[in-house]
Amino acid sequence: MDLATIIGIVLSFGLVVAAIVVGGSPMIFVNVPSMLIVVGGTIGATLVNYPLGHVLGVVGVIKNTFFNKLDSPTKVIEQFIDYANKARREGILSLEPLIKDIKDGYLRKGLQLTVDGLEPQTIQEIMETEISYLEERHETGAEILAIMGGFAPAMGMIGTVIGLVQMLQTMNDPSTIGPSMAVALITTFYGAILSNLVFNPMAGKLKTRSKEEVLIKEMMLEGILSISKGENPRIVEEKLNSYLPPKLRKSSE
Amino acid sequence: MDLATIIGIVLSFGLVVAAIVVGGSPMIFVNVPSMLIVVGGTIGATLVNYPLGHVLGVVGVIKNTFFNKLDSPTKVIEQFIDYANKARREGILSLEPLIKDIKDGYLRKGLQLTVDGLEPQTIQEIMETEISYLEERHETGAEILAIMGGFAPAMGMIGTVIGLVQMLQTMNDPSTIGPSMAVALITTFYGAILSNLVFNPMAGKLKTRSKEEVLIKEMMLEGILSISKGENPRIVEEKLNSYLPPKLRKSSE
Amino acid sequence: MDLATIIGIVLSFGLVVAAIVVGGSPMIFVNVPSMLIVVGGTIGATLVNYPLGHVLGVVGVIKNTFFNKLDSPTKVIEQFIDYANKARREGILSLEPLIKDIKDGYLRKGLQLTVDGLEPQTIQEIMETEISYLEERHETGAEILAIMGGFAPAMGMIGTVIGLVQMLQTMNDPSTIGPSMAVALITTFYGAILSNLVFNPMAGKLKTRSKEEVLIKEMMLEGILSISKGENPRIVEEKLNSYLPPKLRKSSE
Amino acid sequence: MDLATIIGIVLSFGLVVAAIVVGGSPMIFVNVPSMLIVVGGTIGATLVNYPLGHVLGVVGVIKNTFFNKLDSPTKVIEQFIDYANKARREGILSLEPLIKDIKDGYLRKGLQLTVDGLEPQTIQEIMETEISYLEERHETGAEILAIMGGFAPAMGMIGTVIGLVQMLQTMNDPSTIGPSMAVALITTFYGAILSNLVFNPMAGKLKTRSKEEVLIKEMMLEGILSISKGENPRIVEEKLNSYLPPKLRKSSE
Amino acid sequence: MDLATIIGIVLSFGLVVAAIVVGGSPMIFVNVPSMLIVVGGTIGATLVNYPLGHVLGVVGVIKNTFFNKLDSPTKVIEQFIDYANKARREGILSLEPLIKDIKDGYLRKGLQLTVDGLEPQTIQEIMETEISYLEERHETGAEILAIMGGFAPAMGMIGTVIGLVQMLQTMNDPSTIGPSMAVALITTFYGAILSNLVFNPMAGKLKTRSKEEVLIKEMMLEGILSISKGENPRIVEEKLNSYLPPKLRKSSE
Repeated sequence: MDLATIIGIVLSFGLVVAAIVVGGSPMIFVNVPSMLIVVGGTIGATLVNYPLGHVLGVVGVIKNTFFNKLDSPTKVIEQFIDYANKARREGILSLEPLIKDIKDGYLRKGLQLTVDGLEPQTIQEIMETEISYLEERHETGAEILAIMGGFAPAMGMIGTVIGLVQMLQTMNDPSTIGPSMAVALITTFYGAILSNLVFNPMAGKLKTRSKEEVLIKEMMLEGILSISKGENPRIVEEKLNSYLPPKLRKSSE
Repeated sequence: MDLATIIGIVLSFGLVVAAIVVGGSPMIFVNVPSMLIVVGGTIGATLVNYPLGHVLGVVGVIKNTFFNKLDSPTKVIEQFIDYANKARREGILSLEPLIKDIKDGYLRKGLQLTVDGLEPQTIQEIMETEISYLEERHETGAEILAIMGGFAPAMGMIGTVIGLVQMLQTMNDPSTIGPSMAVALITTFYGAILSNLVFNPMAGKLKTRSKEEVLIKEMMLEGILSISKGENPRIVEEKLNSYLPPKLRKSSE
Repeated sequence: MDLATIIGIVLSFGLVVAAIVVGGSPMIFVNVPSMLIVVGGTIGATLVNYPLGHVLGVVGVIKNTFFNKLDSPTKVIEQFIDYANKARREGILSLEPLIKDIKDGYLRKGLQLTVDGLEPQTIQEIMETEISYLEERHETGAEILAIMGGFAPAMGMIGTVIGLVQMLQTMNDPSTIGPSMAVALITTFYGAILSNLVFNPMAGKLKTRSKEEVLIKEMMLEGILSISKGENPRIVEEKLNSYLPPKLRKSSE
Repeated sequence: MDLATIIGIVLSFGLVVAAIVVGGSPMIFVNVPSMLIVVGGTIGATLVNYPLGHVLGVVGVIKNTFFNKLDSPTKVIEQFIDYANKARREGILSLEPLIKDIKDGYLRKGLQLTVDGLEPQTIQEIMETEISYLEERHETGAEILAIMGGFAPAMGMIGTVIGLVQMLQTMNDPSTIGPSMAVALITTFYGAILSNLVFNPMAGKLKTRSKEEVLIKEMMLEGILSISKGENPRIVEEKLNSYLPPKLRKSSE
Repeated sequence: MDLATIIGIVLSFGLVVAAIVVGGSPMIFVNVPSMLIVVGGTIGATLVNYPLGHVLGVVGVIKNTFFNKLDSPTKVIEQFIDYANKARREGILSLEPLIKDIKDGYLRKGLQLTVDGLEPQTIQEIMETEISYLEERHETGAEILAIMGGFAPAMGMIGTVIGLVQMLQTMNDPSTIGPSMAVALITTFYGAILSNLVFNPMAGKLKTRSKEEVLIKEMMLEGILSISKGENPRIVEEKLNSYLPPKLRKSSE
């Protein structure tokens, strides 16, 4: 799991718990029915909003996001300089034996099409379609979490309104008003916590990771097209380097 | 009806009802005039916002969305590999007899234009116009539900303000303040429920379904154009596969 | 006036009035100074926001929207099939005598340019500029109403704050607090009603109508260009039909 | 200064002042420290948000917007028909002596480049860059005002929270609660007034004016390109007329 | 550090502190646990939202933004007129010795590619990729600050809800209600201050600075392409001048 997520969750939840414990009995913030209506209502609304497959898919996307390592862009560049040199010296068909050892499915497919001798125009069309639908599938994951980040405080508000109505209807003993309102506010608290410390930041991280993955794929596509056009390895390097911040660039010399 | 919608509605409404029943007499949450002002006001504002035909059309779109089955993308790919093979071996006219049995109107029209020998450029123009206006019609459905999801809490708020003004004007007996405020809050409750558990998530599902349908149509267009250009069946397969997540792809070998 | 608008206004205002009358003396909701500050303040802010001509123009746009009938798309298609047939049989100049009887200024101009023998490219440029500026003028109307839908609740809130400050400053007799707050809340009520039952839904209807008008113009442009390129009437029909939902399409056979 | 702005400000501020005066002593709404924290805080946040030059530039943009007259589009069209006729009859160089008398810098530059014999393609590139950066500079003005329209109510809210905290901490004498809360609410009042009656509507007017100026520049560019391509004056007229609403168009016949 | 930021921060914080000091004991606004939960919770949520490297990178971006000086656009134009003249008179290779002395890495790379004789098309591709990814890296900085500007008031609200729940549960002595609510409101106050006086305006300044830097880079690219196409120095000047507001333009005559 990536470090920032762990630090972030420990830090923010730790401070919230500390604030609760310092202020007195922490048990007043634990209320199972309130938790059920916020969490369950949010999941329910999300299931109406998305097909079952998409919602279940989020779990996979999250696992993928927090545990898979991406190739580093500089490694991708080095690899493509090698390919470009080899293709220039020994011809494009010399790349064929290398393809089987490539782990990344996108790169493997792209090089295969190149070796098969498809025109760069056709390769570009196919590989760009692939990127754009990959992007869309990733976005769905972030979108679902963001939608949950919107439903959670709404469910919290609904729970609080229910609590307020019940309290107002039975307001005989003034001494019970305070505790009843406190209980009504707990759902608002849960909704705000879930939205701001869980769903929204996780949606944000999914988006960032998706951007990084798409960047790598776009660099690969640029490299594949350069090779398929038989461009000079130095040009390939310049082209790919322009995707990186200056300090990450390595000179091949 | 799709499973996620049923589970979602049962889950979220079930929890809300449970929270109400546990808290005391559930009848204080049933208030016909409050329901009328929120539901009727929302429908009224929506009718000012959209032409009658569009609003009535939503019912059809919803039925269509929750009960119609879409072709699976993998089936569409298999079909197009067959067409491409047949067209390559026996000529494009050999597809003519198959057209009559195609159920999907979009695919039927596209193949007919191909068999008629129109240029790929013209076919693309016609079929893309069709997709973009199909998309627009679908979006209108989702938009109307989203607009209703915005009017519902506004009507709830208006109802609550009316209740508060009436209560404040006749505030003689302090013991009636609580119950009056409770009644005033009921419209806020209805508005929030309708918006967050009904209209907004349904608008979301319509959008997702529309995307899926458009994806299928775009794959069909890609396939039709490939056939009309006489492309190699393997290329057709590669092109169509790039629309899918890797794990759904089948190799034709 | 279009039916949906009438039904919508009667329904939503009827229910609000009913809720007021049922709850007691309706006169507490009629407060001329409150009405003045909300309506007048909204108009004032709108006049700072838009040039005088635009604001006055909204009246015309609204009248235009609710009382003018648009040509039906199917009629436009029929017309163009006739033109295409005539142009194909008797030459493009044979359309000249028909131009004078055309009511729609856009169609008349487009056909005139075609008969004058301008190149399709030039006709397209001119007619597309016209559509895009027509769209912009329509949008301004919808935009002004939407801006008013934003200023109205803000003015309502300002009125309520003024009322609250005045009440709090002179809070001697507790029995006057209720009625004073009730009066302060009236402006919030007016702002919410104006925004949600008048301005926002009307802005929505203007947008929908504008889309419909632009659709007709785009179909006309497509048809004009087809004729100016001398395309086959069947192609013209296919092209124009792709703008329509399948069930509205008529076959010319 | 444009009429609508004056009417709008007089109307909206007049009604607010009237509501204040009618309700009792108007002096409770005049509170210099509250004014300072809202106005000063808004300016402070804006200075952190934008470079000093941009913020000072807003004054110039506002003066420019409310006091400069734009050429009317119909006059621009007439002028270009004259140019096109002259260029057609006497050659493009015959426009050279006219250039010095043109007041508008954009038109002058464009015609100069045309007379200098640059290719239409190059002229278009240069003049479009100019329009797009003019647009951006205008937008910055509107943006700064809109940002101020967002900071003002936030500062109002901060002022009110400060007032509430101070009141709650020293709540000994219940009779002072009302007046203290009234004072705390004054900053909310100032923030709402500044945002909704000053900053937001002025940002709106800047945007509208910028659109009008860009429209004129786009018409000039269209005309310049037509002349540089040696197009027929009637075509020039048709092209430019398509930017206008039908009722403003004049026929040159 | 840029002047506007210093003035802005001094002005806005000064006024807030003044309002606090004038109203009584300022110590009631200093509450370390409240500060911890707002600041720490905001940082925690941001760490979940972004990878660690991005969050740490913000510090560098901020330093860069407030302390680095950009080249003035007019100086860039002068420089390019020199290059264009030299290239025209002595050939493009005569620029080679100058390249080593150029400080700006972007300009250096662009000229190197030009001198190396790459085609303008290829140079444009490489250099535009570089601008677009530079823009994206800058935007991430502004985005992180804007996200923090959203989490801060949310954490403030969560802190206030915690305080309210604790107060309501233990509401025995009415005289403690005021001070307890005051303490609960302090987190709302911190959240609003951090969001509106720190994070949001700083995000705004980063965006403005990024636009300025991109403008300079775009002018450099335009100039590099002109030189690589061997265009006339006067054209180069006209092209670059069109990026500037008229009053900043200098004539080379």
